[in-house]
Amino acid sequence: MAILERVDTGPVSRLTLNTPEKLNALSDDMLAALQTELFSIADDPTIRVVILAANGKAFCAGHDLKEMTRGRQAPDGGRAYFADLFTRCARVMTTIRDLPQPVIAQPHGIATAAGCQLVATCDLAIAAEGTRFGVNGVNIGLFCSTPMVALSRNIPRKKAFEMLTTGQFIETDRAIELGLINKAVPDTQLETATNELAEIIASKLGAAVRIGKQAFYNQIEMPLDGAYEYTRDVMVENMMIDDTAEGISAFIEKRPPSWAGS
Amino acid sequence: MAILERVDTGPVSRLTLNTPEKLNALSDDMLAALQTELFSIADDPTIRVVILAANGKAFCAGHDLKEMTRGRQAPDGGRAYFADLFTRCARVMTTIRDLPQPVIAQPHGIATAAGCQLVATCDLAIAAEGTRFGVNGVNIGLFCSTPMVALSRNIPRKKAFEMLTTGQFIETDRAIELGLINKAVPDTQLETATNELAEIIASKLGAAVRIGKQAFYNQIEMPLDGAYEYTRDVMVENMMIDDTAEGISAFIEKRPPSWAGS
Amino acid sequence: MAILERVDTGPVSRLTLNTPEKLNALSDDMLAALQTELFSIADDPTIRVVILAANGKAFCAGHDLKEMTRGRQAPDGGRAYFADLFTRCARVMTTIRDLPQPVIAQPHGIATAAGCQLVATCDLAIAAEGTRFGVNGVNIGLFCSTPMVALSRNIPRKKAFEMLTTGQFIETDRAIELGLINKAVPDTQLETATNELAEIIASKLGAAVRIGKQAFYNQIEMPLDGAYEYTRDVMVENMMIDDTAEGISAFIEKRPPSWAGS
Repeated sequence: MAILERVDTGPVSRLTLNTPEKLNALSDDMLAALQTELFSIADDPTIRVVILAANGKAFCAGHDLKEMTRGRQAPDGGRAYFADLFTRCARVMTTIRDLPQPVIAQPHGIATAAGCQLVATCDLAIAAEGTRFGVNGVNIGLFCSTPMVALSRNIPRKKAFEMLTTGQFIETDRAIELGLINKAVPDTQLETATNELAEIIASKLGAAVRIGKQAFYNQIEMPLDGAYEYTRDVMVENMMIDDTAEGISAFIEKRPPSWAGS
Repeated sequence: MAILERVDTGPVSRLTLNTPEKLNALSDDMLAALQTELFSIADDPTIRVVILAANGKAFCAGHDLKEMTRGRQAPDGGRAYFADLFTRCARVMTTIRDLPQPVIAQPHGIATAAGCQLVATCDLAIAAEGTRFGVNGVNIGLFCSTPMVALSRNIPRKKAFEMLTTGQFIETDRAIELGLINKAVPDTQLETATNELAEIIASKLGAAVRIGKQAFYNQIEMPLDGAYEYTRDVMVENMMIDDTAEGISAFIEKRPPSWAGS
Repeated sequence: MAILERVDTGPVSRLTLNTPEKLNALSDDMLAALQTELFSIADDPTIRVVILAANGKAFCAGHDLKEMTRGRQAPDGGRAYFADLFTRCARVMTTIRDLPQPVIAQPHGIATAAGCQLVATCDLAIAAEGTRFGVNGVNIGLFCSTPMVALSRNIPRKKAFEMLTTGQFIETDRAIELGLINKAVPDTQLETATNELAEIIASKLGAAVRIGKQAFYNQIEMPLDGAYEYTRDVMVENMMIDDTAEGISAFIEKRPPSWAGS
């Protein structure tokens, strides 16, 4: 059994973290598997949406603390290993952002530290009701400094600071209010709910979604004037796509579009 | 009947989009009319607040798709026209931001794509209960890349991404929660509600509101330290206004201020 | 009686604004007292959390308007004094951000103008139920341009603009929803609630909290990629702390950590 399962159903690729005995920790192997699959999906034009789920009682409990502790045995006390580890972990996160396809997180149980970061990093998230989210590294003396990069770009500042310094968890209702997840459904409906959201997005013109996702993260870091200059060019490129011309014509003519591409 | 009506009532200028048969689409003519009126208002010291409303069953349904489709007949397939169109549209949006006077959006019915962008762009918004907001260009293969510039600066990131990639609408309760609008009132009270808000703002010292609006959008894009250096100078200029001295004295002396200027 | 009381209880330093007859205005003397105590606390390794409270019926009503009005009597009409005043006020605010220790605001009654800015500036805030928050300088002709620097980084854009241009207050329920405060409790439980939150944070490894607070505000102003590069290095430094190694080992061995440092 692979530590990361990939099952493609039509245009939807479902990745499932599969080391439940480790609460799906982001071990060296898990990070490598995620990186490999994400790069593979990025190059796969048949895949239009990705779901990131997990087996077992927790979505993801963050880094693999036993592995990190073993890393300390190096002559430098682990310094080089840790720098490399956090670089690899951040690369998985930025690869999710840079992936042409939208990624839906499907957390359940608990999502803590870098596991909470994964949820914050995905473009969208639907959680099982009762899922608990925390950035609780502070409890063991390791402040969740990398998870907070994603978290503080998802939820209001004072609430992020509270979670980071108290280590306390929030549940799904609060996570929706704050903007960490899009919605919550009963556990028994979780897979159906993420599949349905994936299907909705997969039914759109793939080229438009790819253009839009990339533009979303590019423009959000720009000053407003620069963002408008940039997205003007994005809109023009989008307009020049034949399938977009067809989509607009079909709308005007009140008929379904007949798209050649994905 | 003008495609954009302007009615000034004392210090409040009410602009009303008036092509209901086109769902008040942002056609070339409508963009030009908006630009002209906004520039005119910017130079009019008697106007202190602007309300942007619309006639018919929808506030604004975004770009004029028929006009855009005709634009494709140019030898370059419309590329130059589209670049110019999105430049003109963005200029209307940044002119609203740069306008000395606060602008209150008054949406009702539906506000979609660039129509939703208009709402997000205005400084304030009061909607009719039940108004539906969407950035649904993705449904026809044209991702709402320019609308998302305004939207993603108003509401949390994951919710913006969801609206953009699913094309789904949100209603007024959710729009308030997310921060897209300030409040909603029954349709029959809509005009009264925006008038009342406009009157409240118009009753303030105009110079202070003008200084403040400009500073608001300037400082929000700066790092914190730079924002404080900048607003320190803004505060000093505000303090040097005679009417501000009078306003402060009146407060200390527990009497209404007697302001010379607007 | 000092205008700013400081009472240290173990690792928690409680600062209490104590000019209730002036509604704890941020006078020259109060700003100087705050600056002095904050610098003193910054250098005190025994203090791990700060609470900022106030005596009397209001938390803080902003600047001292009588003092500012007296400042106008200078030959330059007060220009140099105002520039210096707003510089000193901003320095208190950025010192709170730069303080190694988290700062919890404990507002009650009213927190207006620079008093609301103080609440927004603190890392965390627990208010007495019914506390009213406003940036109402616009009512006297002085737009709250410096308070909005902190406010607009705490709450959604349109709501901040509404508060700034109408001068209207929000109460605690709305302040929680918007993200201005973390929670509200009955007035009789206020001091207990801030003490409890302070104790929770003080129970964490102090070095981790210090590292984390500094990193929080540094990374939040960076683009995402830069934020990950920066926090990677922060995480490595955190990992190299002996007490962090002990914290992680203790967690793996399911025992409480035995920390040497604070």
